[in-house]
Amino acid sequence: MTATNFKTVFNDIFLELQPTEKKGKVASYIPALSNVDPEKLGIHLTNTNDEHYFQGDSDERFSIQSISKVFSLTLAIRLIGKNLWARVGVEPSGTAFNSLVQLELENGIPRNPFINAGAIVVCDVLMTHLTNPKEELIAFIRNLSDNQELQYNQKVAESEKRKGDRNKALIYLMRDFGNIHNDVDEVLDLYFYLCSIEMSCRELARSFMFLVTNGMDHSSGEMIVSPSKAKRINTVMQLCGFYDEAGEFSFRVGLPGKSGVGGGIVALHPGKYAVAVWSPRLNHKGNSYMGMKVLELLTTKTQDSIF
Amino acid sequence: MTATNFKTVFNDIFLELQPTEKKGKVASYIPALSNVDPEKLGIHLTNTNDEHYFQGDSDERFSIQSISKVFSLTLAIRLIGKNLWARVGVEPSGTAFNSLVQLELENGIPRNPFINAGAIVVCDVLMTHLTNPKEELIAFIRNLSDNQELQYNQKVAESEKRKGDRNKALIYLMRDFGNIHNDVDEVLDLYFYLCSIEMSCRELARSFMFLVTNGMDHSSGEMIVSPSKAKRINTVMQLCGFYDEAGEFSFRVGLPGKSGVGGGIVALHPGKYAVAVWSPRLNHKGNSYMGMKVLELLTTKTQDSIF
Amino acid sequence: MTATNFKTVFNDIFLELQPTEKKGKVASYIPALSNVDPEKLGIHLTNTNDEHYFQGDSDERFSIQSISKVFSLTLAIRLIGKNLWARVGVEPSGTAFNSLVQLELENGIPRNPFINAGAIVVCDVLMTHLTNPKEELIAFIRNLSDNQELQYNQKVAESEKRKGDRNKALIYLMRDFGNIHNDVDEVLDLYFYLCSIEMSCRELARSFMFLVTNGMDHSSGEMIVSPSKAKRINTVMQLCGFYDEAGEFSFRVGLPGKSGVGGGIVALHPGKYAVAVWSPRLNHKGNSYMGMKVLELLTTKTQDSIF
Amino acid sequence: MTATNFKTVFNDIFLELQPTEKKGKVASYIPALSNVDPEKLGIHLTNTNDEHYFQGDSDERFSIQSISKVFSLTLAIRLIGKNLWARVGVEPSGTAFNSLVQLELENGIPRNPFINAGAIVVCDVLMTHLTNPKEELIAFIRNLSDNQELQYNQKVAESEKRKGDRNKALIYLMRDFGNIHNDVDEVLDLYFYLCSIEMSCRELARSFMFLVTNGMDHSSGEMIVSPSKAKRINTVMQLCGFYDEAGEFSFRVGLPGKSGVGGGIVALHPGKYAVAVWSPRLNHKGNSYMGMKVLELLTTKTQDSIF
Repeated sequence: MTATNFKTVFNDIFLELQPTEKKGKVASYIPALSNVDPEKLGIHLTNTNDEHYFQGDSDERFSIQSISKVFSLTLAIRLIGKNLWARVGVEPSGTAFNSLVQLELENGIPRNPFINAGAIVVCDVLMTHLTNPKEELIAFIRNLSDNQELQYNQKVAESEKRKGDRNKALIYLMRDFGNIHNDVDEVLDLYFYLCSIEMSCRELARSFMFLVTNGMDHSSGEMIVSPSKAKRINTVMQLCGFYDEAGEFSFRVGLPGKSGVGGGIVALHPGKYAVAVWSPRLNHKGNSYMGMKVLELLTTKTQDSIF
Repeated sequence: MTATNFKTVFNDIFLELQPTEKKGKVASYIPALSNVDPEKLGIHLTNTNDEHYFQGDSDERFSIQSISKVFSLTLAIRLIGKNLWARVGVEPSGTAFNSLVQLELENGIPRNPFINAGAIVVCDVLMTHLTNPKEELIAFIRNLSDNQELQYNQKVAESEKRKGDRNKALIYLMRDFGNIHNDVDEVLDLYFYLCSIEMSCRELARSFMFLVTNGMDHSSGEMIVSPSKAKRINTVMQLCGFYDEAGEFSFRVGLPGKSGVGGGIVALHPGKYAVAVWSPRLNHKGNSYMGMKVLELLTTKTQDSIF
Repeated sequence: MTATNFKTVFNDIFLELQPTEKKGKVASYIPALSNVDPEKLGIHLTNTNDEHYFQGDSDERFSIQSISKVFSLTLAIRLIGKNLWARVGVEPSGTAFNSLVQLELENGIPRNPFINAGAIVVCDVLMTHLTNPKEELIAFIRNLSDNQELQYNQKVAESEKRKGDRNKALIYLMRDFGNIHNDVDEVLDLYFYLCSIEMSCRELARSFMFLVTNGMDHSSGEMIVSPSKAKRINTVMQLCGFYDEAGEFSFRVGLPGKSGVGGGIVALHPGKYAVAVWSPRLNHKGNSYMGMKVLELLTTKTQDSIF
Repeated sequence: MTATNFKTVFNDIFLELQPTEKKGKVASYIPALSNVDPEKLGIHLTNTNDEHYFQGDSDERFSIQSISKVFSLTLAIRLIGKNLWARVGVEPSGTAFNSLVQLELENGIPRNPFINAGAIVVCDVLMTHLTNPKEELIAFIRNLSDNQELQYNQKVAESEKRKGDRNKALIYLMRDFGNIHNDVDEVLDLYFYLCSIEMSCRELARSFMFLVTNGMDHSSGEMIVSPSKAKRINTVMQLCGFYDEAGEFSFRVGLPGKSGVGGGIVALHPGKYAVAVWSPRLNHKGNSYMGMKVLELLTTKTQDSIF
């Protein structure tokens, strides 16, 4: 796969898609999401040669929402390593992303760190092991994205908090099972701020490069996590990164990835590249309709997935 | 990864394991399985250079059970292509492998082709599109394994049939939803014969090589399935190959694979190798206890998974 | 409550209902049910003074369907007494009447004898303890209804059998748990014949009188079951007689009763009367829409329920 | 049934039970319950002739816990009548008493007013329609029991509150579905105080007499609720008063009733009597082991249930 190819591939994909696709609906449960222009479409790919390929609205920031759960997971793994897996599983959820059913049947241990319940447990771990959780978490993400300006969007976080009854039900249920150790409101505060971060496709692709290169930050050479831990984060993305549609995404795209209800998706090819797409309209499973299409075309046209 | 390495790696793994591990229980629901010597342990790896690495009981045949569901899936995909996915999904099941619950909630469409219900639907497809289903199916598997002697074990098939009430419940439930088109007894007969096949680790590794090499049979050059279909079969194995433990296997091993209650596991590294292990003791999720351990050590020691 | 009153009450009820109610749908899964005139409406009440009150189509026979499960339950209790309760529970089902979910979670023990699975277990008991199950069962019901002409409707039974995949799934699941002891096809044959019986409102009311009078046949003085067993059959009807709508029926009518998808309902006031209504249109829970209304008006106007 | 009989019946029951029964376990989740003497056993029956029959520890107060949900339900029905049934059902729950599963599947509408979720919705109704909910609720119960001294046990209420995570999960889940209208903490405060009330068997029997006499307070002649509403409260007790054991209680005892984890049970025979028993050891479904036995013996020996 040479440099020229990606440029051509992106051109082809955009030509193929633009006249036709208006399916799906923008997330509407908070104003910060529902007010986004549904026509936005951007893609940015960074590879291990520091080459950059991009098209469309790739430099515009959007609410990354659940994509940031990869960052919090990574930080928790740095802090407590494999001890994390006593409190959250690595199995696909097999049901809608906010279901309480499985959590109740499985004694308050969330199936994986990317469903809401699992991400809340990860935040609880951060609360326990960080002195200033919010500050240290954003500092970690700024470092990964090589952008010191990144901020929580306080307005988004507060909107989410006002709509947060389902997450409150989840956290109290888990505390009933003994799987929450910190103050419920403080844990949820961190969780909602985590989801409020805004990044562009370029910044997202950059910040996932350590998972492409065996856990090492490509520019600085810093080890973010060990190679085997990086592989495992990729595995969890492959199996659980798309709510109840992990199989469909793997089947069509064949790369580990993570989506968010803001319409963003990051995917990566270990040893090769990280790629971020953004298109706000979601399918009925809550994943970017066109984002999945773009990535499917990318691996189909390049004939190159991990499988 | 050079030739010498695998030999050393296998030696190291066997040294590490043998004195210690006697955990898990041999499957006991039919005599053909319960009578197997639980101490058996074999491994065979074949790579794209036609090199062979093996150790232990790698040439002894055992009941491959659910591993053969990969063969029936492949044949069904050859016959009807993507139409298959209207009748069976590609999502992990998220519950025990023989549960009726999800099947009922999802209107008789099994979550994936590797849970029992899904494999039965695949057999129904074979019944519809083959003239002599049993003969053509075994011929297909003989071809893949390059061994014309392979047989169904009639005694095993008939034992399974006598214990088959749960599978009868599954097939009648699916027929109630309109997702079975052939005679129930004939479909189940094919299903039980499919599960009765016996192969050695060497034969299994050989027969999965077409999934290592983009769908092409390595020796004959015949296209078994197209490259993109081969990738998709690998994806389904990654997401659904280990009942309710797909995440755990992916997490620890990082390769697509498929297990059977006979204690066999096949895994493969696309573009590199296929490997089969056999150890009859199962963990409480129904997967070979030591088989998973061996493969975990393999990818850990070689520092080489797909992620 | 004097004789005149019931006559007046029935007149009032019919006046109140007839111009308005056409809600609900006739059962359509077999022709014998779908071809019934939806406008039919009949009621017949018999009391302990041998008085009879009736109105409308009360002498026309219809398919009593699940109402006959009270007869098979009574016969099974005569045969094995409290041993029956080791194989079927007495709790409301809390889900749709043909769900496999609860049956799987509760190890093949149906929640109660009136859901399909429970009635099938009851038929299995009859198979074990009767020499000529079909003949002895119909003879028992003829005796209760004081009508030697009653017959199974073979055509209806055979239609049901052809639509019987869901019930086959149920019986194989239960056999997998060890809760079916006889040949599956023979048990289901008895079950489908049981459901095919046709009776009029008059005959139904007559045949339930033994439950009004402490288990004794009112005319012959024969003890059908002991007083305490009669009370318990009444209790099971109260708690489980209306699929997932037992609470609603109890709440509105306040009498033990049993419904069938043919549009019939029998209810009884212990020590006072038995009453049968028939109106073929069903609500979305599968119970006669107008039948429930008629009985609600009956106990409201007479100010007399068991509570 | 004459006066002498009950006295004899109670004597017989106590003789029959005392040497043998020590099964079950006292509730242990809060000290106020776990510290109770497990040997306590009391019964008190009041009939419509103002006769009183009692034995054992019938004048000692104990924590009535969920029994008080009948009082809050009655008060809510007085306030908003049938509008209540848009927010809570009348069907048996079919699962353990604190399960979130059914609540999620049924969109935040609890199955009935006696499971925790339903009782919390009832408290939310009281919050909306009363000026001083706590004061007016205890005043209502004092009136029913003819005892102006009754108090909430603040210590018990605060203990419950500290163990209240499961109930918090329930209330936030229901608020997410729009079925909670008041401040969550205030609703739960009322709920926990409601459960903390302590009464003796004598006081309990007295306070349920209005349900024996068609909704009218027997002494004062005041209409607490209309006759038809009283019947409906009795119906809900019959169908839902014993968590997942409503069928078992109805089957064995044959009277509407309500239990609490403090070991109390109240049952009543419409038009005849109310009876309260207390024995702290609970069976595995959370109902008084010996309390159920005593009431079963009562209706068996008197040959008099509602069925």
